[in-house]
Amino acid sequence: MGYRACVTVTLFVATSLDGYLAGPDDDLSWLFTDQDYGFEDFFEEVDTLIMGRGTYEVVCGFGKWPYGDKANVVVTRNPDLEVDTPGTTVFSAALPDLLKELEEDGAEKIWLVGGGELVRSFLSENLIDEIMVSLHPVLLGEGVRLFPHGFPHTPLGLIGATQYENGLVQLNYRVKEAVKSPE
Amino acid sequence: MGYRACVTVTLFVATSLDGYLAGPDDDLSWLFTDQDYGFEDFFEEVDTLIMGRGTYEVVCGFGKWPYGDKANVVVTRNPDLEVDTPGTTVFSAALPDLLKELEEDGAEKIWLVGGGELVRSFLSENLIDEIMVSLHPVLLGEGVRLFPHGFPHTPLGLIGATQYENGLVQLNYRVKEAVKSPE
Repeated sequence: MGYRACVTVTLFVATSLDGYLAGPDDDLSWLFTDQDYGFEDFFEEVDTLIMGRGTYEVVCGFGKWPYGDKANVVVTRNPDLEVDTPGTTVFSAALPDLLKELEEDGAEKIWLVGGGELVRSFLSENLIDEIMVSLHPVLLGEGVRLFPHGFPHTPLGLIGATQYENGLVQLNYRVKEAVKSPE
Repeated sequence: MGYRACVTVTLFVATSLDGYLAGPDDDLSWLFTDQDYGFEDFFEEVDTLIMGRGTYEVVCGFGKWPYGDKANVVVTRNPDLEVDTPGTTVFSAALPDLLKELEEDGAEKIWLVGGGELVRSFLSENLIDEIMVSLHPVLLGEGVRLFPHGFPHTPLGLIGATQYENGLVQLNYRVKEAVKSPE
């Protein structure tokens, strides 16, 4: 099992039924924006955000930085990546070390924002505690996958499923220990 | 829009949260088998099954043929595929023609069994009416995808979501008309 301590890492994301975070060309126009589907309550509890470089660029493309001054970390292979958004730092080493550092700095509840490559890295080291998926009633057919292949079999425990009138289903899972492949 | 007539095509499948029909080496050991999650009621209403060649081989590997003597069609590029299971025929032409033929033969309710390649072909021609997914609380990490990429944006309408105590969530959707890409 990977590094697990007092910090809680929650993957909170919206996907299509076919598992895309975004359509072609990072299209997010299919996302419901009429309600927040529990996001504001979740966001208030979070002290630190972690995201991949691609996700960071998509968020920067929104124009206005949406995460206030909350501490946020961009994970990238490029330690010289330039960032100029509030509270942002860059991290390029091992993920368990990142969580250890954040914990030492007082982090308690971390939002893993995405994207798919970073989710795979976190799952590969069994570093996610909770998964909250806003499952949208659409098949996108192509795009950016939330769960690219290539991590261990990981059982989940359902905490709850909430159905909204417009067809969105909010799914909350607890992540159990990943199953090691036989050597 | 593709051929749509009196026949109803329902995709009824079990998947992991990361969208796999089967794990590596067609592993299905993660499927809950303690209940049928609506399958028996659904199966009783179905008169015809359609599946891809790969799925057919997996089902044949179960030892006992599980579908009684219901009419079932194996879609394959190989018109000479040999089949020796009850009620099985082989089809190698265009899918709308298949549905038309089945309808002429009196079919009313068709179960699209899988696998992913055939699902993509059906979605490419907007030939699925309903999707019923038994979403299992597990991430498999790799395997056979239910929705391989490469079909048009397809909106869905949620009919219902049912949560089971063991964490399975049964999701039922009506398929709307696919969105054509701009030429």
